[in-house]
Amino acid sequence: MASTNSSSSPVVLHWLENSRSHRILWLLEELEVPYSLKIYRRNPKTFLAEPGLSQIHPLGKSPILTDGEKVIAESALIIEYLINKYGGNSSIVPKTMEDKESVKYYLHYAEASLQPVMLLLSVSNYVRHGPLPVFMRPVVKRVTDAVDNAFAGPDAKKQLEYLEGRLKLNGTGYFVGDRLTGADIILIFPLQIAKSRAGLTRETYPLLWNWLEDMLGRDAYFRADKKVAEMGVSSRIKL
Amino acid sequence: MASTNSSSSPVVLHWLENSRSHRILWLLEELEVPYSLKIYRRNPKTFLAEPGLSQIHPLGKSPILTDGEKVIAESALIIEYLINKYGGNSSIVPKTMEDKESVKYYLHYAEASLQPVMLLLSVSNYVRHGPLPVFMRPVVKRVTDAVDNAFAGPDAKKQLEYLEGRLKLNGTGYFVGDRLTGADIILIFPLQIAKSRAGLTRETYPLLWNWLEDMLGRDAYFRADKKVAEMGVSSRIKL
Repeated sequence: MASTNSSSSPVVLHWLENSRSHRILWLLEELEVPYSLKIYRRNPKTFLAEPGLSQIHPLGKSPILTDGEKVIAESALIIEYLINKYGGNSSIVPKTMEDKESVKYYLHYAEASLQPVMLLLSVSNYVRHGPLPVFMRPVVKRVTDAVDNAFAGPDAKKQLEYLEGRLKLNGTGYFVGDRLTGADIILIFPLQIAKSRAGLTRETYPLLWNWLEDMLGRDAYFRADKKVAEMGVSSRIKL
Repeated sequence: MASTNSSSSPVVLHWLENSRSHRILWLLEELEVPYSLKIYRRNPKTFLAEPGLSQIHPLGKSPILTDGEKVIAESALIIEYLINKYGGNSSIVPKTMEDKESVKYYLHYAEASLQPVMLLLSVSNYVRHGPLPVFMRPVVKRVTDAVDNAFAGPDAKKQLEYLEGRLKLNGTGYFVGDRLTGADIILIFPLQIAKSRAGLTRETYPLLWNWLEDMLGRDAYFRADKKVAEMGVSSRIKL
């Protein structure tokens, strides 16, 4: 059953383990917005979210943010909403129109282009190492390898090279401007998966690697991890 | 090689066969914006786009829209851009703040939540019917069926039920308000795939089916199909 860490704040984050939602918790900590946290677990066998999420939003996917009567689904929209409403004068609010547009681009790009290829690599990895009869394994390995090599692998590589190039071009250690923005927040999830599934290492993509270390080393990220640990769940992304 | 249908308009749509880009051509026809069309083909063996696209945008994905010096990637951003810039007083521009927000929601949802599950079903279908040695086929069929049944299948069903419910609730035959909006434009691609890959039929989801027939029956959609046919390519989505 979902467990809740209550506060008197109208903001509630519905957080599912091992999902896209941890970055929203990170953002709440960056913004220092008071919030309640509602924790949902995955069924260890089916990987499906416990059903309570569907009572908040019919799709039953996490993250969902509620703010009073308002129910917001989709990571990118939640990030935009929180920064617009609670960003105030914080440095996370982009200052120029150009930076605003860049953040908006990454909010779409991360979910529409980068995340799907990470999903494909995660699924083929799951299939490859899933509970299979021994006699099936060589065939399944051969087919999943072939699919990764033909499509998802090269696409992931192209996208990581592109992102490495963007960091190089920007030259500040952040994706947009010279401060943390919503672009960094949305990209953390697919780029964490890229570490385990798409060959993102210190050697292959040094700027992305440094960026990951910087982001995961931030105080607010540490507080987000601690918050869920205190509630007995792990913040680890293992896909 | 890419073929171009030139006009003196600064707007150029980079259109790739069998891709997310046909809906942008449809939108251009709805808006009656002058444009040039640049057609790219897929390699019939690898399914990869011909390399010319990478010269327009480093990710080499379609759609890409250029408008003078401006280069825009990501379907949702292109749709928003075209409607904001060229919508004028057209009925496609949402009139209320609530409708504006709903359109924005669908622009994110369609790409971040619906499209990835359609991608998974398309890939597993491709693997299942791909060029496999005969002895592998039963194993591959068993594994891809199991993956579809465990994850992508139920997720697709939940999402189609959700969308059917949204059409019912709205009651106008459109996803937002009582006119065609960017929500209908973005949803056409994943819902066309749902016909072939996720059991969307007249019987299972009658409102979605009627919506698809209405959209594909619009004059502007017909003109979009005709335009690419005249340039020797098919507008068919077969994934």
